[in-house]
Amino acid sequence: MARADFPAPVKDLIAGLKRLPGIGPRSAERMAVWLLQNKKAEPLALAEAIVAARNQVIACPVCGFFATRELCEICADTRRDDSLLCVIEQATDVLPLERSGAFKGRYHCLGGKLSPLDRVSPEDLNIAGLMERIAVVEGEMEIILALGADVEGEATSNYLADMLRGKPVKITRIAQGLPAGGGLEHADELTLLRALQGRRDF
Amino acid sequence: MARADFPAPVKDLIAGLKRLPGIGPRSAERMAVWLLQNKKAEPLALAEAIVAARNQVIACPVCGFFATRELCEICADTRRDDSLLCVIEQATDVLPLERSGAFKGRYHCLGGKLSPLDRVSPEDLNIAGLMERIAVVEGEMEIILALGADVEGEATSNYLADMLRGKPVKITRIAQGLPAGGGLEHADELTLLRALQGRRDF
Repeated sequence: MARADFPAPVKDLIAGLKRLPGIGPRSAERMAVWLLQNKKAEPLALAEAIVAARNQVIACPVCGFFATRELCEICADTRRDDSLLCVIEQATDVLPLERSGAFKGRYHCLGGKLSPLDRVSPEDLNIAGLMERIAVVEGEMEIILALGADVEGEATSNYLADMLRGKPVKITRIAQGLPAGGGLEHADELTLLRALQGRRDF
Repeated sequence: MARADFPAPVKDLIAGLKRLPGIGPRSAERMAVWLLQNKKAEPLALAEAIVAARNQVIACPVCGFFATRELCEICADTRRDDSLLCVIEQATDVLPLERSGAFKGRYHCLGGKLSPLDRVSPEDLNIAGLMERIAVVEGEMEIILALGADVEGEATSNYLADMLRGKPVKITRIAQGLPAGGGLEHADELTLLRALQGRRDF
């Protein structure tokens, strides 16, 4: 006699949920049972939200951020400063920068960072699009490199800086140093080294 | 100038995912972005799995376990022992019992446990169905109460034992004691009290 198990549609649902990032078998089972048994669950609404997002959301052809129309919200906004272009790794990096409230320019998502180990080379990143955007600019322009402070982010920043040298743009990069709220006792040596190297007049 | 945010379909998807049990805002955002950007993600397949499970899965009218046909896999299995009926709180309790491999009888899900604080009274539980199942049995029958070892589980067990007294059934309950792999130093007093009370000849 076989041990009883969930019927096939429940097992399929668990398998689908288990593929989501950060979701293990137990969480997937809990979510599936909740979707099927909880009175407050709206499984069909969730399915529709997935389909709608999948069908309506595209990458903005200019900057790479999430868009539903031809251009994303940011590229379509005429009040933004065209002379400031912030280069980021991935589309989701836009949100923390926007939440900081400190940036009113435009973005350019590379779609990754240089990583020989993962076989990501310059051709895999949207660097051609960045060059095109720079080529059509009239007047002054600042390119802010806002890539991660890890090895691949550093390598990508250096590669871009080399590419951009000679172009009529000012190249800057976001500061590295002590994170807000962090004490010196929690900072590693490299962070403190860079915080010291990047020290500013007070 | 408003700070840019995800387009509406992405925000709707994040909101839907955030309602799942154990999923906070950050996990929901991560899952939504993964569904939209990862090449291995199959968002439409997941949406279909949700719809299929929602439309095909019902509660078995006899025992309350998950079913896709008239009867669930367990109630439809003629090889199971009709003289053993295991009373459990909820449909998902079937699976750990099945995995133990120690039970070959049938199940009855109450659909909850008595809890005055949550306004769950006997009428809210499928006790009438249990009585009907007992009424039609010919020959010996054992009712195994496999409810939780918490206060509500105890109260429900006592209530059912009172209801079943006088019926031609043997009433048992699953043992309480030291969990497998657990040392005495990790057991609380109540567990040890019950383990001592439930001691058996060696």
